[in-house]
Amino acid sequence: MVKIEEVVKGVLAGDKRSVARAITMVENSPEEAQSLIAAVYPNTGKAHILGLTGPGGSGKSTLIEKMIREYRRRGKTVGIIAVDPTSPFTGGAFLGDRIRMQELTTDDGVFIRSMATRNNPGGIAKATKDAVKILDASGKDVIIVETVGAGQSEVEIIKVAQTIIVIHAPGLGDEIQAIKAGIMEIADIFVINKADRENADKAVMDIQAMLQLDNKEKAWTPPIIKTVALTGEGVPQLIEKIEEHWRFLQKGLLHKRSLEKAEAELVEAIKDKVTSSIIKKLKREKRFEEILRRIVDREIDPVSAAEKLLDQILE
Amino acid sequence: MVKIEEVVKGVLAGDKRSVARAITMVENSPEEAQSLIAAVYPNTGKAHILGLTGPGGSGKSTLIEKMIREYRRRGKTVGIIAVDPTSPFTGGAFLGDRIRMQELTTDDGVFIRSMATRNNPGGIAKATKDAVKILDASGKDVIIVETVGAGQSEVEIIKVAQTIIVIHAPGLGDEIQAIKAGIMEIADIFVINKADRENADKAVMDIQAMLQLDNKEKAWTPPIIKTVALTGEGVPQLIEKIEEHWRFLQKGLLHKRSLEKAEAELVEAIKDKVTSSIIKKLKREKRFEEILRRIVDREIDPVSAAEKLLDQILE
Repeated sequence: MVKIEEVVKGVLAGDKRSVARAITMVENSPEEAQSLIAAVYPNTGKAHILGLTGPGGSGKSTLIEKMIREYRRRGKTVGIIAVDPTSPFTGGAFLGDRIRMQELTTDDGVFIRSMATRNNPGGIAKATKDAVKILDASGKDVIIVETVGAGQSEVEIIKVAQTIIVIHAPGLGDEIQAIKAGIMEIADIFVINKADRENADKAVMDIQAMLQLDNKEKAWTPPIIKTVALTGEGVPQLIEKIEEHWRFLQKGLLHKRSLEKAEAELVEAIKDKVTSSIIKKLKREKRFEEILRRIVDREIDPVSAAEKLLDQILE
Repeated sequence: MVKIEEVVKGVLAGDKRSVARAITMVENSPEEAQSLIAAVYPNTGKAHILGLTGPGGSGKSTLIEKMIREYRRRGKTVGIIAVDPTSPFTGGAFLGDRIRMQELTTDDGVFIRSMATRNNPGGIAKATKDAVKILDASGKDVIIVETVGAGQSEVEIIKVAQTIIVIHAPGLGDEIQAIKAGIMEIADIFVINKADRENADKAVMDIQAMLQLDNKEKAWTPPIIKTVALTGEGVPQLIEKIEEHWRFLQKGLLHKRSLEKAEAELVEAIKDKVTSSIIKKLKREKRFEEILRRIVDREIDPVSAAEKLLDQILE
């Protein structure tokens, strides 16, 4: 058994193996996760957290690979957390181009980790938030969270980021676009990758059209950057825009967002604590069984039943 | 203002307009939803609830249309709830073939409703459950809940069903299959639609291969039905299989599942009640602001902060 204190020490020293162990801990054990996060938390808050999302076929992984190389050229250290949908039948995440990215892991300034959604799709958002904190505490300058951007749980995950980048490519199906709708709204930067393909300008115009529909007054207008990840074209411009957004956030919005994020995390933690202790207590009582039977027999509906059970606990 | 009692009366009488109003109420107002559901709840528990899910391009809507016609031929009334991902930019769900289904709505034995996920993706599972209860209380024999089956929230929604039907079609991309992994595990019946296309047999074999990987002993082995929704081929056989599954459930599993469902709904309701009342209370206190500031300043992590706040409330 590795002691948590040792792992924490390693994380704070930026030791790669300790970071890997720490992330495994937060994935597997909620109790260890909490001791660990509580210990590293004072050392967090320094990294710039990017969320990168886009459908399969948009060239996301290749783009991230090139972004890492550009950041390294600029002397910055980078952590990457890839969150992927996973088949419970095959038991593993799609690797694909990610293998090429693994080459980068011989570089001590880069840490790459794939988080499988496996049998715990609810816990993945929490585990990702914890993994970001670990990488932050380990001293990484930039942390990239990668998702495929399908569905609501993905939107939850990406919200850990301070700068959200949505990647498109010409010629991807309409359905994929629709699924990503919730994410488009919270994007800070758009990227049209594979910009050497025909229809790239049409893809840019589609996004512009969508942005114009959203006529809220905004202090930051999401720019649209064209890249060709395979050749690296446009990647330095993308990094420039990301840095620009970071400076923009630091001018004021960052503190407001930190407060909001702190409140959301606090409320979430309160919910977890309260419900687990109260439900554990209620389940031990005989009237819990009794009221379940009444729900099944259609004598009372679940919400009224909950009110009844709680009447005695809450004033 | 329509009185809730009037709407309830209309729902129980099977009045179409009242059912529509009731569903709008549960979509828009949690308070009205609760009074309404509590009132209709004793009249629920009679319908057979089907969950139908499959990616865009699988011909889901056309298949549902043909299923409705077959059920009507057999003298059964049908309610349909279509849950779709919705763009907050366009503000509306994709209609597509659904328009053709609207023709069916002149039939008093059919009720079709589209639920938009709009700005409340978390609430959609709850609203769908409530809508199912309303249709059930209104006397529909069969209720079909349709989703596109992408992501975890969709899996949540489809779990309202007693019989879960997963639709595939030959030649759909790999990515879509992966996203649906969580749903494949809980499927009771598989449908290969567009079975007149080449590769239909390959699609059947792919599912068979996946089912064999799952070597748990099961009382019900999910059958794979081939259909051609456009011509209606295979639809009577599908309905037969659905009825067979219904009889299978009634032999014993149905009661067990009803108990599980009741417990899940009760626990959910308890969580809602507890957290909303406790968080409301905490937010009024001065130390809530104070502890938020300490989280932002990295003096304490959110979970430890939650423990601190709750120490006084919970024993």
